[in-house]
Amino acid sequence: MPRTNEPGRTVVSRLLELLFAFQPGQSSLSLAELVRKTGMPHATVRRLVVELTGAGALERGEDGRYTVGLRLWQLGTLAPRTEPLRALALPFMEDLYAALQQHVQLAILEGREAVIVERLSAPNAMDLVSQVAGRLPLHCSGVGKVLLSHGGPDLIEEVLRGALPRYTARTVVDPAELRKQIADCRRTGTAVIRGELTDGADSVATRIVNGEGVVVAALSVVVRSDSVKHQAVLPSVVASGLGISRLLGWRPGVKVRER
Amino acid sequence: MPRTNEPGRTVVSRLLELLFAFQPGQSSLSLAELVRKTGMPHATVRRLVVELTGAGALERGEDGRYTVGLRLWQLGTLAPRTEPLRALALPFMEDLYAALQQHVQLAILEGREAVIVERLSAPNAMDLVSQVAGRLPLHCSGVGKVLLSHGGPDLIEEVLRGALPRYTARTVVDPAELRKQIADCRRTGTAVIRGELTDGADSVATRIVNGEGVVVAALSVVVRSDSVKHQAVLPSVVASGLGISRLLGWRPGVKVRER
Repeated sequence: MPRTNEPGRTVVSRLLELLFAFQPGQSSLSLAELVRKTGMPHATVRRLVVELTGAGALERGEDGRYTVGLRLWQLGTLAPRTEPLRALALPFMEDLYAALQQHVQLAILEGREAVIVERLSAPNAMDLVSQVAGRLPLHCSGVGKVLLSHGGPDLIEEVLRGALPRYTARTVVDPAELRKQIADCRRTGTAVIRGELTDGADSVATRIVNGEGVVVAALSVVVRSDSVKHQAVLPSVVASGLGISRLLGWRPGVKVRER
Repeated sequence: MPRTNEPGRTVVSRLLELLFAFQPGQSSLSLAELVRKTGMPHATVRRLVVELTGAGALERGEDGRYTVGLRLWQLGTLAPRTEPLRALALPFMEDLYAALQQHVQLAILEGREAVIVERLSAPNAMDLVSQVAGRLPLHCSGVGKVLLSHGGPDLIEEVLRGALPRYTARTVVDPAELRKQIADCRRTGTAVIRGELTDGADSVATRIVNGEGVVVAALSVVVRSDSVKHQAVLPSVVASGLGISRLLGWRPGVKVRER
């Protein structure tokens, strides 16, 4: 068995660096690509990859390239911030999808972004920039505005004082206007955006609240601009959000808290 | 920085052992439980857990217990054997669910078991033993019989000569009878089971085939026994399976291959 004089601490961080080299759009990597992406010696990468493959954490395809293995996928499904919420919300998302035949998205707050936990889309629906496990900006996506509005004053100040990228001509980047929208969203629990992230795509979003009144997620329907009246979609989105919230222990009268 | 005389190989395997200690039903573990489950020294577990938490691979709850973190979940969504198939199949599963309002399951072959990649269930549907990332036996579940039947002669012999646990009074455990069912399934592409895995639950399953004629997954609808005529459900399950297969490159005339 080869001995190494690397401290264990370093082996762990190298291993994680190797695993996190796999990213959306780069989910299949050759040994050479892993060496290039991590900057680690070829022999080290090779040794780690062999061990990870042996344990089922990575898988080696017929083309010799490596991908994330089934065992890591299984491990990921145990994440409490996504999977229980996803399992709980999915039936409501399915019903909403069956009723509206539009994109339905569920997202949670992670740092200064919204992470999509689940998305249902019609086979012939419009293309979106988002994907499951993908990230959306807080200031100009439907789920993002809902999560931002309930993320507490520190997060709001951090986001409003930071860079507010403009994605389309309609993206709202004026902090004063955003503050008004945030106050509205906190009052109503909903956010409607029109073409702010993708031209021609509108989003109708609502909050999901747990038994302690904490907003733990946001649910949205994304529709082609002007294809449906937002006022017609909003009640069903809100009702679905309340249904999921009830399963999380929320009851009418539970006050929605600041984070 | 602490030095260790553990070979790197051992650090990697210890790390994986620690991660894989998280399992369905044991998704939240204290430090003491991790020590007990892995048999590793407390100091080692503590050091690994601190590093994993720092990297977002694990998360520490307010109760001090550890869970799988969002970054591992995101990594898991990159697994090519589950996520692209799941994303492709989900719209068809949604439509099937909307039409039938029953459990809809998608599974792949992993070793000598079927692993559930996705499941849609009505909020008030009957309880099942299965869950996403959970495993089902090949010889007596609907998706299992489909995957077993197309898994090649080696797998079939291995399963039929191995232990064939009986789950209910109706579980078929006679190898000769199973051989007949397997031959039927290879001819029709479908399997119908009646209360073999769970009393009172029937399953109607079909194969999903890629452009090379390889059966890559199985799709099933699980219904309460005698609640619907299987003959009424079968065509929609088969049509959904063919729809998913077409997206994978299958066309009428592509011969279904043995593994």
